[in-house]
Amino acid sequence: MVDFKPIGTIRSPYTDPEGMPIQPAGAVGVRGNVEVFDEYVPGLSALDGFSHIILLYEFHRSSGFDLKVVPFLDSTPRGVFATRAPRRPNPLGMSVVRLERIEGAVIHVLDIDVLDGTPLLDIKPHVPHFDSQGEVRIGWLEEQGNEVAERRSDSRFR
Amino acid sequence: MVDFKPIGTIRSPYTDPEGMPIQPAGAVGVRGNVEVFDEYVPGLSALDGFSHIILLYEFHRSSGFDLKVVPFLDSTPRGVFATRAPRRPNPLGMSVVRLERIEGAVIHVLDIDVLDGTPLLDIKPHVPHFDSQGEVRIGWLEEQGNEVAERRSDSRFR
Repeated sequence: MVDFKPIGTIRSPYTDPEGMPIQPAGAVGVRGNVEVFDEYVPGLSALDGFSHIILLYEFHRSSGFDLKVVPFLDSTPRGVFATRAPRRPNPLGMSVVRLERIEGAVIHVLDIDVLDGTPLLDIKPHVPHFDSQGEVRIGWLEEQGNEVAERRSDSRFR
Repeated sequence: MVDFKPIGTIRSPYTDPEGMPIQPAGAVGVRGNVEVFDEYVPGLSALDGFSHIILLYEFHRSSGFDLKVVPFLDSTPRGVFATRAPRRPNPLGMSVVRLERIEGAVIHVLDIDVLDGTPLLDIKPHVPHFDSQGEVRIGWLEEQGNEVAERRSDSRFR
């Protein structure tokens, strides 16, 4: 087992999984706060130079998992690892959000697609040239991908 | 505490933290295997349509952390959350690698910058338009970022 200890809490307008956006692309302009526990605040130094940050967190309202899921954007069952579904073998979430400003222990962010009260595990700077080499293909999302801004979550957390 | 259970093991040519590339951008063309435990293989369905996958894993050879670190690409101390340093409050690693092919429980990947034997926690599809809205700035890396392909790891895992 790998044990992680939350380093903070994510605050957002979304208190219920149903109806929330399913990706930052569907949450453009939505404000949230990342509240880092006091002991970790020195670790935020220099973060404010980045326009986007990667939040890694626990999908704390998700329980259990299926290895095949029907994704939000599709009607065909796909392997869970080919989706961003919250119900996963390890309920580990990742969102890239826009950083607005940092005030002490609070990071003000935009485009937040995360439930209020979510336990934060890590923050990393978003550096596109670290994270993708060469031409990109997005599989089953090639046709459905443009719908992400309009779709909302449903019962898939449960 | 948040408990995760490894879903597989990452295999790479890097058996020692020293001398390994520090990002996939520095490991272009380097081959590795992601070996998923048998019980999770059905979850890989449809993953082969994606050119790139996100690996989330434990930095299992890293111990402890400092909140201020001198990054590989710099000589100034920065907050750990503004870096990709392996020694972090939660030693959670993320790499975007190129998917070559999937054979049963083995995902053949390229551009691997991960230590051999690393415990795999999750796989997600890489979907650029999910993960970055608007113009990107990369803070202290603006000047140093282009060096990432040449730089190698040193003692920063310890």
